[in-house]
Amino acid sequence: MQKILVANRGEIALRVMRSAREMGIKTVAVYSAADRDALHVRYADEAVFIGEAPSSQSYLVGEKIIAACKTTGAEAIHPGYGFLSENAAFARQVREAGLTLIGPSPEAMEVMGNKLSAKAAALKYNIPMVPGTKEAITNVAEAAARATEVGYPILIKAAAGGGGKGMRIVEQAADFEEQMNLAVSEATSAFGDGSVFIERYVSSPKHIEIQVLGDSHGNIVHLFERDCSVQRRHQKVVEEAPSAILTPEIREAMGKCAVDVARSVNYTGAGTVEFIMDEQLNFYFLEMNTRLQVEHPVTELITGIDLVKEQINIARGEAISFKQEDLKIKGHAVELRVYAEDPAKGFLPDIGTLETYITPKGPGVRVDDGFEQGMEIPIYYDPMIAKLITYGNTRAEAIERMARAIDEYQITGIETTLPFGKFVMQHEAFKSGQFDTHFVQKYFIPDSLNTGTEDEALIAALIMERLLTTPQVKQTEATNIGTSNWVKNRQVMYFHYNSGN
Amino acid sequence: MQKILVANRGEIALRVMRSAREMGIKTVAVYSAADRDALHVRYADEAVFIGEAPSSQSYLVGEKIIAACKTTGAEAIHPGYGFLSENAAFARQVREAGLTLIGPSPEAMEVMGNKLSAKAAALKYNIPMVPGTKEAITNVAEAAARATEVGYPILIKAAAGGGGKGMRIVEQAADFEEQMNLAVSEATSAFGDGSVFIERYVSSPKHIEIQVLGDSHGNIVHLFERDCSVQRRHQKVVEEAPSAILTPEIREAMGKCAVDVARSVNYTGAGTVEFIMDEQLNFYFLEMNTRLQVEHPVTELITGIDLVKEQINIARGEAISFKQEDLKIKGHAVELRVYAEDPAKGFLPDIGTLETYITPKGPGVRVDDGFEQGMEIPIYYDPMIAKLITYGNTRAEAIERMARAIDEYQITGIETTLPFGKFVMQHEAFKSGQFDTHFVQKYFIPDSLNTGTEDEALIAALIMERLLTTPQVKQTEATNIGTSNWVKNRQVMYFHYNSGN
Repeated sequence: MQKILVANRGEIALRVMRSAREMGIKTVAVYSAADRDALHVRYADEAVFIGEAPSSQSYLVGEKIIAACKTTGAEAIHPGYGFLSENAAFARQVREAGLTLIGPSPEAMEVMGNKLSAKAAALKYNIPMVPGTKEAITNVAEAAARATEVGYPILIKAAAGGGGKGMRIVEQAADFEEQMNLAVSEATSAFGDGSVFIERYVSSPKHIEIQVLGDSHGNIVHLFERDCSVQRRHQKVVEEAPSAILTPEIREAMGKCAVDVARSVNYTGAGTVEFIMDEQLNFYFLEMNTRLQVEHPVTELITGIDLVKEQINIARGEAISFKQEDLKIKGHAVELRVYAEDPAKGFLPDIGTLETYITPKGPGVRVDDGFEQGMEIPIYYDPMIAKLITYGNTRAEAIERMARAIDEYQITGIETTLPFGKFVMQHEAFKSGQFDTHFVQKYFIPDSLNTGTEDEALIAALIMERLLTTPQVKQTEATNIGTSNWVKNRQVMYFHYNSGN
Repeated sequence: MQKILVANRGEIALRVMRSAREMGIKTVAVYSAADRDALHVRYADEAVFIGEAPSSQSYLVGEKIIAACKTTGAEAIHPGYGFLSENAAFARQVREAGLTLIGPSPEAMEVMGNKLSAKAAALKYNIPMVPGTKEAITNVAEAAARATEVGYPILIKAAAGGGGKGMRIVEQAADFEEQMNLAVSEATSAFGDGSVFIERYVSSPKHIEIQVLGDSHGNIVHLFERDCSVQRRHQKVVEEAPSAILTPEIREAMGKCAVDVARSVNYTGAGTVEFIMDEQLNFYFLEMNTRLQVEHPVTELITGIDLVKEQINIARGEAISFKQEDLKIKGHAVELRVYAEDPAKGFLPDIGTLETYITPKGPGVRVDDGFEQGMEIPIYYDPMIAKLITYGNTRAEAIERMARAIDEYQITGIETTLPFGKFVMQHEAFKSGQFDTHFVQKYFIPDSLNTGTEDEALIAALIMERLLTTPQVKQTEATNIGTSNWVKNRQVMYFHYNSGN
């Protein structure tokens, strides 16, 4: 494999190209009109323009991607995440064009792309599922009996459902009949089908996922878990590996389940098996993502394995570079997704120019990003600016390092999730590991974030006062103080004393 | 310990402050007139001006450092490396002022600060020394007999010597008398003392050093070796851990020796025991550095231990955070010192402004630096801009990653050692591990470095040609190409194709 086309943009395009370059493989970027000046375009050895800014006219058009391979002689396509990465039809097109997709087979994608077929495949291996009815029910008495079997609290959801319609949480048996009737009537009016599923409601769920790799020689391994329970709007924002609460026994059991799920579709490449976990550490299969995850770096940091290199090696027919028994967890890693969003305003996307953009450095800090100072965040795509990942010998050290790195990160011109990240790192629930997917709803008070403006005014006033009252502070020392972006982030005062000459 | 003063500047001041901040300890910076706008000043919680730019008027004045502690209430001083870090008199002053120096005792500094007393201390533990005479000789016949015992090649060096005067390498016994007479007469005229030492000349030496830590509870451990053989002007420029050539047995033996050397002076804090190694992997004690080394990050990356945190913990009376038997080497790390020097011109220091300054990112890359874009490299201090450190699962991966990271590093306005680093990473002698301290003299041809200018002209010409002859390349696509700094570093051509609309 001499040349790879990366059918993506932003940080993940750079991430993939970095590993390719380390392997001596040439890279081809594709870009839309909004990404003419993007870093991934500059980083690649070649770049191909593929259309207008909306992804439906560029990054989502499989034919253009394949044509770009033909133009440049690229033999393989790395789809990154999002866009075409889990599109089985595209995977087939790639195969038919005589190219290699760096990912699983279209068949595996198809099975895992549908929740029902995914669960059917997983059932063959006795993978634990959330307890409940396997088939849709309409009869209230029968449903009530099943609910008692499953155990309260219960979730009633419309078989034909979606979007929360026809969905009811029932805390106790006494309320079941009333709630069931409401759910059935809601489902009937919304979907013309009143049948429902009954399942156990996991009230304090953790989102735990297992990274797997499969190769074309039949080897399948797992690379331990990631805890991605800190979410906003059902989307991950803070992830870590390993989980703070898993025992070695549960880790091994989940790893084995994940390998079995992958084996059920003869999985090749990198994939992630997602589970929901209740307070008693019971885990239940949710779905499998048939691509590289945004949060894959935390796994790389605790295992030393470069997942993109493994993907590329697997795609060119090589075996996975290690054996399951050789893999050990070393240290702890935490990731914060730095989004162009205002956490003080319900995580509303914020657009604009990165007027200041200086990333943190030093021990145990990794930054995967796709921007430089002065660049604009385009409105057309996911508003993620960067992934900030810290590594420590212990979980506490990784968290302290993340707090330190957040303080160092200098971004002006745009609001970001950095202050929210700091909030999480300092919160007792996170520090103790006792948190679930309701973390934001339970604990986050947007007004508690200091947005800096008032502080800055206070600092300026204090500096002026000091300048006027302390003769030994020179003008030259003081002028520099107000301009430091670190002042804002750190919310710390510092004065310059003059004890020399 | 609530507040620490860092008696240093540049990258190491930032490095120390980062760990302090992660530990919740406040930091105080000191700065000279040349460093008013320096990053370490902005990073610290407080900053104290201590004098004019020459370090003899600021960073080397112990009284000013101690006064700054009194002004700010700092309880301890981290000296970094260089400046006052190995100054026993300063260590005494600090102790007498009731402050804590984050480092060994003045007594340990004193013994190890002198090569003769250091060797005398080490001899008690049977540490291997380069074979030779223990006392000075003037008699030629006696010297010749000793030379035969020691074995050729032989180094004759003036007892009162220094600066290479009275120093002779003798390859075979037949030449001994003539060379000895020359050495004695040179030494007599230079120092008024014709006596010489005879010792084995190590013709292909590797510089291998062992990191040690000692605490006030009598624990002393080692953190394996670093290979620092790639040097220019007898100064390290590329370092790595572990060494490519050590066996586990030799590693253990060297580790034990290093611990013994530290034990000979009841060493506390972080220190480094330096050895010279010959082609048969015999190792001989050179000296001990009683401070943190520039190249400490490679050790941090392969062990997961934060050496600055250990230093601080030890200084406040705690025990080392781990046991020798719990420490394992994981992966491989390489460091390149990015100096403001022109490798094409004999590594001549180059000063000026960092017009472009963008650091590499992504997996396995650590940057410790002290500058931002637009800053000037002051002429008063060591011209190191940054340390670029890469980590990989294997030595080959760490090297490939370093090459990739060097390509990503964007510095304009100043010449640096980055192209030299690329040369080293691509050289077979380095890749195979078969290199010694003569690497630069043996292999480096300054003209082989591509300084970029000609390439840029070629690229511009090719772009113009393509613009004129290829109608589907749009103006908008092409304008961006010439401005990318990556083009220069990568020496790679890329074209933008237009296959969309």
